[in-house]
Amino acid sequence: MDKNHPSSEESKQKIEALKAESKESPSLRNFDRQKKIDSINGALALRPQIEKIIDEVWEAGFDNIFFVGIGGTWASSMQLEVYMRGKSNVPVYVENAAEYLTTGNKKLTDKSLVIYSTVSGTTAEMIEFCKAVKAQGTRIFAFVDTPDTELTKPEYQDYLICYPENEQLKFYMVGNYLMFKNGDFPDYDEYNKQMEASLAEGLANVEEAADELGFNFAKSEVERIKKNPAYPRYFVGAGNHYGATYSYAMCYWEEQMWIRTKSITAPEFFHGMLEVIDEDTPVTVFVGEDEQRVLSERVVKFLDKVNDNHFVIDTKDYDMPGIDEKYRGSISHHILRAVNNRVDAYMELFLEHPLNMRRYYRQIEY
Amino acid sequence: MDKNHPSSEESKQKIEALKAESKESPSLRNFDRQKKIDSINGALALRPQIEKIIDEVWEAGFDNIFFVGIGGTWASSMQLEVYMRGKSNVPVYVENAAEYLTTGNKKLTDKSLVIYSTVSGTTAEMIEFCKAVKAQGTRIFAFVDTPDTELTKPEYQDYLICYPENEQLKFYMVGNYLMFKNGDFPDYDEYNKQMEASLAEGLANVEEAADELGFNFAKSEVERIKKNPAYPRYFVGAGNHYGATYSYAMCYWEEQMWIRTKSITAPEFFHGMLEVIDEDTPVTVFVGEDEQRVLSERVVKFLDKVNDNHFVIDTKDYDMPGIDEKYRGSISHHILRAVNNRVDAYMELFLEHPLNMRRYYRQIEY
Repeated sequence: MDKNHPSSEESKQKIEALKAESKESPSLRNFDRQKKIDSINGALALRPQIEKIIDEVWEAGFDNIFFVGIGGTWASSMQLEVYMRGKSNVPVYVENAAEYLTTGNKKLTDKSLVIYSTVSGTTAEMIEFCKAVKAQGTRIFAFVDTPDTELTKPEYQDYLICYPENEQLKFYMVGNYLMFKNGDFPDYDEYNKQMEASLAEGLANVEEAADELGFNFAKSEVERIKKNPAYPRYFVGAGNHYGATYSYAMCYWEEQMWIRTKSITAPEFFHGMLEVIDEDTPVTVFVGEDEQRVLSERVVKFLDKVNDNHFVIDTKDYDMPGIDEKYRGSISHHILRAVNNRVDAYMELFLEHPLNMRRYYRQIEY
Repeated sequence: MDKNHPSSEESKQKIEALKAESKESPSLRNFDRQKKIDSINGALALRPQIEKIIDEVWEAGFDNIFFVGIGGTWASSMQLEVYMRGKSNVPVYVENAAEYLTTGNKKLTDKSLVIYSTVSGTTAEMIEFCKAVKAQGTRIFAFVDTPDTELTKPEYQDYLICYPENEQLKFYMVGNYLMFKNGDFPDYDEYNKQMEASLAEGLANVEEAADELGFNFAKSEVERIKKNPAYPRYFVGAGNHYGATYSYAMCYWEEQMWIRTKSITAPEFFHGMLEVIDEDTPVTVFVGEDEQRVLSERVVKFLDKVNDNHFVIDTKDYDMPGIDEKYRGSISHHILRAVNNRVDAYMELFLEHPLNMRRYYRQIEY
């Protein structure tokens, strides 16, 4: 039996520990400020490596660039694509590994570049995907969190960066440099100066500032969920927050907490889903700071009229000293992630459900 | 007050009529065989007009082709894109009207072609979208169901076809001809011969064959929904059935029936959502016949192991005489639509909820 299965000794011990843990007040649970700062700064320090790889691909030429993933990594790919969509005509697209393995993609050729990220380094679909595209001569640029795993083997990629966490940040660093190369990002140097000086401290501050919010939100959510476990929790987001919304609902609440969710983009909310909103339907709206902010604001305005049970996380509520207003749209999804880290820490506590417990994924054959 | 609002006289009368209607046995409710056949054949007869328009665009040249929509029409665009993705490198992409109006898209230029479809001819986002892209010189090819509406005005498009219903069929006719022009569809003539001879009769037969299934499924679903109205209904689909799955959950069950749903692609189901599946979680899986069929079959196999409350609609269960096996992947989403027409007719009956009733959409300001 896998150690993450609910009936394993490890899981049972974790559940007992969560039961015994104090639930009195916010405690910055599971937060190590210095570790967080070092992790982000370490990712930002990958920039010369990333630039060197992109320089090489740029020099050799390419037809299309595909960000490829499945589940959460597919969602991260979507975040990067929508970030670049309105700013640059660099041919950047998103592909889902399992869809490629069945449907294929005639635009993904031997002249294309594939970029992907994996935490485990062992995702079955990604391994098959890499085999398939390498066989046709496509170049692969891989970010792998875990060293010495299957996907770090040389046959799976042309360019490899092994560094843990910060997936979206890595993707955005690639995107920013692609836009710089394409002439779409004249203030690239100033942007990086600000990020490298202030992003890590700023995001650590956000986690601290959001700790009480995370505690209170998780506490009230868990009370309501226990009253009616069948009820879905709705999450709405737009722009480069939508990938985050989709993966937050699916990879965190569904996969890690076993809570029913539905995620929807803010504009699509108005083309069907709105009709199921009652006074007490639980909706969380993530309001970011890119160009699609207005679309999420419209959802909040609608909910203010008809619903008494919505919760808004607006990244604008958090200061990021040292980072210009005009750059916040490119990082507000990190602010959201920092706030949600606090929510998750307390969801685990109040649910008394270890977040790494799985009953099906990698536990049974299907 | 709008006639579709629940408190209108029209809605009240419809509800009374539904209450009075017999619920004893399947009755091919809301089905007019000849009307259905004529509607499909009328759409297929648009082919010369569609080909003429595409010939003209092809001759003049283009950089990219964007299928654009919002809500259900965005979903139809996704169906066309995934249909062509593995077969052709014609640069066909999908754009969401509201996202374009905020984020923009640098790949949608004055050399691009936009194709869209609208039922009402009055969707606010589509009107704004058309204004925005016409202003930069982009060509627009519009399918409008309703004559003499705002979007049929000449300033909104370069090419217009006014014909009701059959949105996916119209999009696929465009896609098929684009692939023919690009050398990807050598048997285009044979394909069209079969469709024009047999598709309409075949789909009418499917509706008749699925009538009892629709009755029984709707009856049992409504019983369970009344027991626990908060519980979401899950819908899973893949490939060119996913757009249909997404819009079925959102535009039919949510918008028309006010029932909570979640839709998910079959491959993504395994990257998070699976963990919320209990023995009695209600899941409907749509199994189609394109290359992604195997992905939906995998979901069914998983559910067979852990769930006692899933329902499978497999289009393979329905004959389509006169249409070769190899072409069924391009039309199995129409078979699904025909089956779901039967489900919807009886959902309206058992819910005693008129499908055109709206409490928010076009009823209040937001």
